[in-house]
Amino acid sequence: MSDGPVRHRLLVSCADRAGIVAAVSSFLAGHGANITSSDQHSTDPSGGRFLMRMEYVLEGGDAVSLERAFGREVGAPFAMDWRISPSRPRKRVAVLVSREDHCLLDLLWRWRRGELDGEIALVASNHEVCRDDAEGFGVPFAPVPAKAEAQLLSELAAADVQLVVLARYMQILSGDFLERVGCPVINIHHSFLPAFVGADPYRRALERGVKIIGATAHYVTEELDAGPIIDQDVERVDHRHDIEGLEEVGRDIERRVLARAVQRHLEDRVLVLENRTVV
Amino acid sequence: MSDGPVRHRLLVSCADRAGIVAAVSSFLAGHGANITSSDQHSTDPSGGRFLMRMEYVLEGGDAVSLERAFGREVGAPFAMDWRISPSRPRKRVAVLVSREDHCLLDLLWRWRRGELDGEIALVASNHEVCRDDAEGFGVPFAPVPAKAEAQLLSELAAADVQLVVLARYMQILSGDFLERVGCPVINIHHSFLPAFVGADPYRRALERGVKIIGATAHYVTEELDAGPIIDQDVERVDHRHDIEGLEEVGRDIERRVLARAVQRHLEDRVLVLENRTVV
Amino acid sequence: MSDGPVRHRLLVSCADRAGIVAAVSSFLAGHGANITSSDQHSTDPSGGRFLMRMEYVLEGGDAVSLERAFGREVGAPFAMDWRISPSRPRKRVAVLVSREDHCLLDLLWRWRRGELDGEIALVASNHEVCRDDAEGFGVPFAPVPAKAEAQLLSELAAADVQLVVLARYMQILSGDFLERVGCPVINIHHSFLPAFVGADPYRRALERGVKIIGATAHYVTEELDAGPIIDQDVERVDHRHDIEGLEEVGRDIERRVLARAVQRHLEDRVLVLENRTVV
Amino acid sequence: MSDGPVRHRLLVSCADRAGIVAAVSSFLAGHGANITSSDQHSTDPSGGRFLMRMEYVLEGGDAVSLERAFGREVGAPFAMDWRISPSRPRKRVAVLVSREDHCLLDLLWRWRRGELDGEIALVASNHEVCRDDAEGFGVPFAPVPAKAEAQLLSELAAADVQLVVLARYMQILSGDFLERVGCPVINIHHSFLPAFVGADPYRRALERGVKIIGATAHYVTEELDAGPIIDQDVERVDHRHDIEGLEEVGRDIERRVLARAVQRHLEDRVLVLENRTVV
Repeated sequence: MSDGPVRHRLLVSCADRAGIVAAVSSFLAGHGANITSSDQHSTDPSGGRFLMRMEYVLEGGDAVSLERAFGREVGAPFAMDWRISPSRPRKRVAVLVSREDHCLLDLLWRWRRGELDGEIALVASNHEVCRDDAEGFGVPFAPVPAKAEAQLLSELAAADVQLVVLARYMQILSGDFLERVGCPVINIHHSFLPAFVGADPYRRALERGVKIIGATAHYVTEELDAGPIIDQDVERVDHRHDIEGLEEVGRDIERRVLARAVQRHLEDRVLVLENRTVV
Repeated sequence: MSDGPVRHRLLVSCADRAGIVAAVSSFLAGHGANITSSDQHSTDPSGGRFLMRMEYVLEGGDAVSLERAFGREVGAPFAMDWRISPSRPRKRVAVLVSREDHCLLDLLWRWRRGELDGEIALVASNHEVCRDDAEGFGVPFAPVPAKAEAQLLSELAAADVQLVVLARYMQILSGDFLERVGCPVINIHHSFLPAFVGADPYRRALERGVKIIGATAHYVTEELDAGPIIDQDVERVDHRHDIEGLEEVGRDIERRVLARAVQRHLEDRVLVLENRTVV
Repeated sequence: MSDGPVRHRLLVSCADRAGIVAAVSSFLAGHGANITSSDQHSTDPSGGRFLMRMEYVLEGGDAVSLERAFGREVGAPFAMDWRISPSRPRKRVAVLVSREDHCLLDLLWRWRRGELDGEIALVASNHEVCRDDAEGFGVPFAPVPAKAEAQLLSELAAADVQLVVLARYMQILSGDFLERVGCPVINIHHSFLPAFVGADPYRRALERGVKIIGATAHYVTEELDAGPIIDQDVERVDHRHDIEGLEEVGRDIERRVLARAVQRHLEDRVLVLENRTVV
Repeated sequence: MSDGPVRHRLLVSCADRAGIVAAVSSFLAGHGANITSSDQHSTDPSGGRFLMRMEYVLEGGDAVSLERAFGREVGAPFAMDWRISPSRPRKRVAVLVSREDHCLLDLLWRWRRGELDGEIALVASNHEVCRDDAEGFGVPFAPVPAKAEAQLLSELAAADVQLVVLARYMQILSGDFLERVGCPVINIHHSFLPAFVGADPYRRALERGVKIIGATAHYVTEELDAGPIIDQDVERVDHRHDIEGLEEVGRDIERRVLARAVQRHLEDRVLVLENRTVV
């Protein structure tokens, strides 16, 4: 991840109609922005929803006046939901863990390598076991007892984070918490959702005799394990895997799915449309 | 698949205890049998179930007297469920289809190539669309109306089949049918079970926004989509796949999972243990 | 694949600079074209090559005058290589085979299902074994002896094809042939290129003891097995696979990789940039 | 990985003939050993090589006298290469690294979790960058300059290791070193061998335009990148991946392939047969 020039990101969601791409790209060209990447998706050319993500580099233009002009000249006429997200300063991230360390360690290591497009600003946990890892990577560690949602909210607010990651955090967060936290929450579920919604998925996978197990990273909503899926992955297993064997294979899947989902989110690549995502 | 010498297969299931492998392999060695392949699985060395599959070639011995002696000298003392299955004559197979042709065509093609360790003896369907394909490959085609289970049973009996394959057969078979058919029935379900049990799995996968879809081959039991899983496979999909796109990807998964499961079964490689399989 | 309205495809390749997307999309919007899909790739924002593929539906405009105007108003000012490709009439395809039938059968079956965005107009072969399959699907079969390139060219010309697919065609085509055939040629190589370039890849894979085998679909150039790669796929194997086992696994990989590559080409999704492809 | 009773492992390689399994399993049963797992492979039932790995638990017998008796009663008569390997004390492992930390960290983390059936006894490097990670996990770190093979040998001897792992160690070891080190050496090569043998595989993969990249764990022999392959894995990539993107994807493949290979070796699951492995 080189430093290079600042890449701005424009995210757009609006009713689909002719002329959107033309209007946006003409506006950007007229303000000295060179588009370096563009992705778009239309749920249905007639009557559907249009989603777009553009990255551009400013060549001489001014970011603030461009943003103001965009709303007036393009956003309003097309009734867009839109957002311009400077890729720096990078988003601040809190990671919540319980006893399992693999997802946390993997995120910390990727962050140290510079692979993660954000800053890990806080590790919070209802156990002490991950304190040394967090502090070893130079990240503050906040012990927060289970159920102490008010304390957790205040730690997150103090750390000023824009993303919360549940890295095998074994506490269910209330709808009230999700409303008040004020930023997206990403969870890793240790099954190939919607198979094995809820607790103890590896044991249930063993009992059902599945030949493939998986993990799912999703945004957290009030309904348990039902939020929009960001990424999933799987591995083949067989009758020789007992419950510990499944968990061992599963840990590898969990950490790579969660890291990929967090990275996509930090790059503003995940667009949510009802209960689905466009990545 | 070369013709080579006849390979016999011994399948064993019994309570685990010391000395089973020794007893079986000494017996075989003493009767002029050269073991060419051996797989075994123990659910738990103390108090568990022991499963074994051995392939052997007879060098001078006599198959019939070996089989009789085995029961007396090894099977009975160890209280084994056991079976010796000559790999020839090969099992006769009936394929049941409705309108979708991809799984049927794939099985017919593999059978023509000699990849399948069995004989496709009958194609039966509640529609006419697959008649030409079946007959083009030289396989008799039996039209059987939906719900006409008695007629279906009599067609299967007349064809003398030892395996029934539901290759996207869109009729639910009754418990009574399953009891009377007298041989295993393998089904392909177009989802990654236990996700999306029941009808219309691709539509439900689309609505849930999963990033991976799959298919599952399983033995049919009276409880819908709950029988022992033989094989599963998956493919990655994304927001660009509409329902037709998912079905197209799905067809490729379905046909290869079903073909693999049928082949494993025909090679006597699938051992069922409660509701799970050892393959 | 529904019939729906005609979707036109615009393919562009030019030196990268600011304003290209704006110019193209404004032009299309101004001519009554609704862009339904857009993909673009830039090798380097400063000094690189810009590639774009847009699909659009004409709402009231006229295709012929749009095409003429595009060259004048956009293509020339940006010094573009460009092409507008109506998605109908669909491209005509010739499939060349030798003795192996699996890739051919798979293409024929997909074509019959309507999965393939083209017409299989001819099967040509230096053997007779695939005649019945071709004719069974209603496709003319032309026997052409090995080395008879002039005869092959005349058969291809008579069939008026825009794509030649080598579906395990075991003859090397000369540079002269490739020049004179006048359309792209896609080959399936039965290895994970660039491993095992040349003949007998499965035997060499066995000898090297690889744990994964693969197949590669690529455009044919005069240098053997070195043309631009369109798609690749792999499967896991182990020591239990002898040469026949590898070939059996390999056939499944070959047919799905070739089908995917042919389909992507027929949808004008494959852009070639030097010796690489953007798909 | 529970502690449980000591599981002994018997590894056998000999000319194939009838009666081997019977002889071995009868011997073990007669010495109070309960076989808990057995794998065997024959390259060819007539005239081939027979490989077997058995795990057993001693119930009352004596390990030392069993081992002595085995050689006399079974090993010698069948002219076996054989070895009985107590699974404890576990093998001691040295990890050699240069600047890249991902494979090292992954091994250290798995070892800390108890997933690795061995002891990481030493990290040696021609750079200082990985010192903190090694020492943070409580493992001694030995700085050894490039080319100082004598010093490296003496560090490895002092640490009394039975396995050397090259975890992205960017020095070529001499044939003399390999002879004198006295234990197996496992390397991770950052390509899907035999594609891209030698240096800079990701750059060459980019230039060739491959659609899948991989990594290969293999035993080191004097011929560069040509030793027996233990494990390989791959991931799909596309034109959007530049060289940094390929390296990032590649690091994930490298660490999981290497960890899997090291673990299989530590469990005595890798049997080498000429230049291939049976895993």
